Amino acid sequence: MTLAPARLAPMANAIRALSMDAVQAANSGHPGMPMGMADVATVLYAKHLKFDPKNPQWADRDRFVLSAGHGSMLMYSLLYLTGYESPTIEDIRNFRQMGSPCAGHPENFLLEGVECTTGPLGQGLAMAVGMAMAERQLNATFGDDLVDHNTWVIAGDGCLMEGINHEAIGLAGTLGLGKLKVLWDDNDITIDGKTGLSTSEDIPARYRASGWDVFSCDGHDFADIERALAEAAASDKPSLVACKTVIGKGAPNKQGGSGVHGSPLGADEIAAAREVLGWSAEPFVIPEDILADWRSLGAKGAEAREAWEARKVANPEAAEFSRRMAGELPDTEDVARTFAGWLEGDANVATRKASENCLNVLAPALPEMIGGSADLTGSNNTKAKCQEPFTAENYAGRYVYYGIREFGMAAAMNGMALHGGVIPYGGTFLIFSDYCRNAIRLSALQQVRAIYVLTHDSIGLGEDGPTHQPVEQVMSLRLIPNLNVFRPADVIETAECWNIALQTQETPSVLALTRQNLPQLRKSGEMLSARGAYTLRAAEGDRKVILIASGSEVELACTVRDELQAQGIGADVVSMPCMELFDAQEEAYKHEVLPHDPSILKVSIEAGTTMGWERYTATSRNGGLNIGLDRFGASAPAKDLFARFGFSAASIVPKVLEKLSV
Amino acid sequence: MTLAPARLAPMANAIRALSMDAVQAANSGHPGMPMGMADVATVLYAKHLKFDPKNPQWADRDRFVLSAGHGSMLMYSLLYLTGYESPTIEDIRNFRQMGSPCAGHPENFLLEGVECTTGPLGQGLAMAVGMAMAERQLNATFGDDLVDHNTWVIAGDGCLMEGINHEAIGLAGTLGLGKLKVLWDDNDITIDGKTGLSTSEDIPARYRASGWDVFSCDGHDFADIERALAEAAASDKPSLVACKTVIGKGAPNKQGGSGVHGSPLGADEIAAAREVLGWSAEPFVIPEDILADWRSLGAKGAEAREAWEARKVANPEAAEFSRRMAGELPDTEDVARTFAGWLEGDANVATRKASENCLNVLAPALPEMIGGSADLTGSNNTKAKCQEPFTAENYAGRYVYYGIREFGMAAAMNGMALHGGVIPYGGTFLIFSDYCRNAIRLSALQQVRAIYVLTHDSIGLGEDGPTHQPVEQVMSLRLIPNLNVFRPADVIETAECWNIALQTQETPSVLALTRQNLPQLRKSGEMLSARGAYTLRAAEGDRKVILIASGSEVELACTVRDELQAQGIGADVVSMPCMELFDAQEEAYKHEVLPHDPSILKVSIEAGTTMGWERYTATSRNGGLNIGLDRFGASAPAKDLFARFGFSAASIVPKVLEKLSV
Repeated sequence: MTLAPARLAPMANAIRALSMDAVQAANSGHPGMPMGMADVATVLYAKHLKFDPKNPQWADRDRFVLSAGHGSMLMYSLLYLTGYESPTIEDIRNFRQMGSPCAGHPENFLLEGVECTTGPLGQGLAMAVGMAMAERQLNATFGDDLVDHNTWVIAGDGCLMEGINHEAIGLAGTLGLGKLKVLWDDNDITIDGKTGLSTSEDIPARYRASGWDVFSCDGHDFADIERALAEAAASDKPSLVACKTVIGKGAPNKQGGSGVHGSPLGADEIAAAREVLGWSAEPFVIPEDILADWRSLGAKGAEAREAWEARKVANPEAAEFSRRMAGELPDTEDVARTFAGWLEGDANVATRKASENCLNVLAPALPEMIGGSADLTGSNNTKAKCQEPFTAENYAGRYVYYGIREFGMAAAMNGMALHGGVIPYGGTFLIFSDYCRNAIRLSALQQVRAIYVLTHDSIGLGEDGPTHQPVEQVMSLRLIPNLNVFRPADVIETAECWNIALQTQETPSVLALTRQNLPQLRKSGEMLSARGAYTLRAAEGDRKVILIASGSEVELACTVRDELQAQGIGADVVSMPCMELFDAQEEAYKHEVLPHDPSILKVSIEAGTTMGWERYTATSRNGGLNIGLDRFGASAPAKDLFARFGFSAASIVPKVLEKLSV
Repeated sequence: MTLAPARLAPMANAIRALSMDAVQAANSGHPGMPMGMADVATVLYAKHLKFDPKNPQWADRDRFVLSAGHGSMLMYSLLYLTGYESPTIEDIRNFRQMGSPCAGHPENFLLEGVECTTGPLGQGLAMAVGMAMAERQLNATFGDDLVDHNTWVIAGDGCLMEGINHEAIGLAGTLGLGKLKVLWDDNDITIDGKTGLSTSEDIPARYRASGWDVFSCDGHDFADIERALAEAAASDKPSLVACKTVIGKGAPNKQGGSGVHGSPLGADEIAAAREVLGWSAEPFVIPEDILADWRSLGAKGAEAREAWEARKVANPEAAEFSRRMAGELPDTEDVARTFAGWLEGDANVATRKASENCLNVLAPALPEMIGGSADLTGSNNTKAKCQEPFTAENYAGRYVYYGIREFGMAAAMNGMALHGGVIPYGGTFLIFSDYCRNAIRLSALQQVRAIYVLTHDSIGLGEDGPTHQPVEQVMSLRLIPNLNVFRPADVIETAECWNIALQTQETPSVLALTRQNLPQLRKSGEMLSARGAYTLRAAEGDRKVILIASGSEVELACTVRDELQAQGIGADVVSMPCMELFDAQEEAYKHEVLPHDPSILKVSIEAGTTMGWERYTATSRNGGLNIGLDRFGASAPAKDLFARFGFSAASIVPKVLEKLSV
């Protein structure tokens, strides 16, 4: 079935009507973008997008990303109009109200059909790059029969101005992601006014410089939109379509200005718009013929999906494909056995190296693992021996050279995880989590299994100095909800933490790893890290002190303990590789490890900011003791830095004794 | 005096020798970049850079930024060779050792002549944009006689690949910063290998698309370098010079590969390099004739500076110029008086609006204040009425439309503050501090007075939902050393916090401000915020409870207190607008406000993560009580969200009573 332009115009106006009415009802929201891009979105859905509203999780659907997430009413309108089960028209009436899945910005965890959470500008497009990468990787693995779909994006000037845009399009261009198509809402308006206030860039030239094809159209001329989208679809390069639009198109007195971006139109202007658009239906009512046209698109998608299901049945790889798409791990008994072997050893290795050892076991066993690094492969130890580079020439590769693009990498990892079928992990220095922090946050918010391998996790990195030494990063990542921050103490904990990270489907993980060598502290493999913290060394005699430490400071805590014990002072060492998991344990376990008893002095030792550790120590008499680093580091060899900043038994033991004597 | 190419080559080799020897001595560092860019840097210093080593703080010097900070030995070599007092050759011998100002990466607070701290890639160039902005603003204000200098940058592939590069060059292009010149170390190598592994971008085309001029040269042909730098210097656009270089040039067996980037060459290769370079001097010894050539450059700079001093003496604006460059505030009595007037009122305004009110008093009184916003002017309330836009047509303007470039903005603010003569402040939503977090960190590390106006500071922003609602941001910013994070509770505290921020020369400030209205809680103006926290409401009768709150939750704490008092339970309310300042108070004051007495229940109330508040509450019997939000927010009107997440007296009072009853 082909819908003629005369049929498309009222379909687009249905988006405009829903958008302006919902924003008005909420007295909050962004009508300008949905109204401006209604025509383009209608052509996209009518002529190109492969989707089946009754099977929103169909693996081979096209991915559609509304990178300009503030235009969420465009998304909700499209989902409702094409016949997704959710949102209902009632949900749209309750746009931006408590409990409605039609949130201020689209949230992947509230609605199927919303492929990713958007709103933080630029990241939608950057996640789409990751989706397109996952698509090519799976296509290379499973063939056209099972995997062959496009990733379409609508992005605004904001998305294109953000720095992450440069990283994302550079990566896409280098990887030759020809199935990625970006529709740019080229409306010359940002919140502060005309784009010319802040930018004079030739955007098409920039995209071409990054290896993209660029097309353009009048975003309100259906035939022209169709031509441009067809050209983009036919290109074998990642493509940008500059859609010249009028923001708020249809609102006669306000369109084309920044005022229509983020405020309700008001009753008078809505009445005027209804007039201009020839839209006489009541708010939230879509005339039947128009709705029927929209719903017919869904039927078309169902046919495509059924054909795909038939191909899948005949495909010998179908079961493996389904396993990967479901995010289920293969039987990892081999993996567990291999870990067990390490317990025999006595490894003195950096945890980054321990992590590499894990990867060399895990990556061969889990073909869905796609690694990478933001140009620190040799430092992050992120490449498993079995991994070939993922390149435009070899999409079957499983290792991504992300370049010096931390934010782009993290967002791409989110996109890959959201696409499904792959488990992305990627490395950079822990300090540069600052560069991609909001993408890590979006991993957590979107509940995806992205694994961040963040090495050089303290002043222990030594000579590179304060710009490279994380001080506040570990604790500040712990503040992000739904993120497990692991700081393993040795080779065994590292293996455990990798295992937990892989098994945690809806929570991303950070592995904070050392540059410097650490001794093996345990020879038992009971997955003690899964409880977040545990008693590694028990006091002999009366327990007077509990030393709580993470990562490289656990070894130090053991030394401090031995000196205390030598003076007849009973001291536990608690290793705490993951605060979040410990906090989630039942009270009885928590009290066993860290009793509330204020007569026991609790001491935290971590080479980072102390704030936050009071949760575990301040219940002690005199408030406990926090050994940490509440200032920037310095440039010197690691051993000198640890000594200078008091990370030595010689410095800590007297402090403990003093506290005990008060 | 003109140095012929024949004289330049040994000068450049002096850089190479110092760099490879220092890295070797430290057994750590990056020889590749200094050796690769030695020839270009030599031409820059010999032919273009305006500097006087004996007066490194000369206001009208050219600014030189080594954006590729890992090449720090290039910087240290240049400073030593041209005759700066520091570093000494002994400092260079101690490269990367404890106490040497020759740190792993260049630190502005360790060496004069290091204009900014670099190492986090991309930010040096982005700070240089800010320096060039400050230069133009001061030039427009004080004229060519006092201010007319270039900003030169050396940047590597990493700096150009980072997202912030896009933001920085877009801003520079739009603002037409013709006195900004970037020398790109175009060596085709990144840490992971050939640049082609991760990028295929046409960099000159991208720069041209952003309004830059692009030139190129053979980075090892002195005549060609001279030509290209002269062309760039003559251009009235911001200019990129692509310097085709060989990384590690001079190390015969290792040059041109990624192995030479970040590892010592080794004794054998250094011997081979000495051979190739014809360099027979001992390590850390520079032959006299070569050193004399280098030192002659400093003498040339001294002449230029003396001429400038003479012009300054004759300039009627000299005193005002000197005041601004010294960073001293003008007499602010007028400002203080105006604040006093507000105490009479009874304002019920959002703190973002209170901040705007402050700006409308401060900006006219402090002409050095340069405001701006990352495309949220109307939401951040950052523009004072007196401020004209700062544009290519009007550099006298004092308000920057930064565009949707949070990271670029923050880095530019750092550059402006480092240049001196201006006090930059800039706004975005608090959540997007995530996008510029490492630049905020560099404000703190570099000890500059940059003021971040971060509005929409909690779920109180309402409908935009979890992507826009800060939960962990306030606490995570508090973790950054040397950063004052202010979260004022009303119009009075907002005025106090602005005052403190302006008066704090070596510590940057964050102002976390509300979208929603807040009642005025105080009618006294004793600058109580300067102590970080203070007793806003004192208990009547026995003090059983202390409620500690910040920002919008102080009002709530007052309501909770009144209900407790009504039940006969004495309760203080402590307003804590700035934890950092409170922690810096003498013990006696801290104990007065928050006594250690465990029988007093301490309760924190803040609409963000609770972790960290235990510092103040966990000393209570039963560990205290923390009211906060340890999950992501949701999309709904603010009042519904506060109710839903327990920020109401109805929810909090029973929890307090329960704790008291245990």
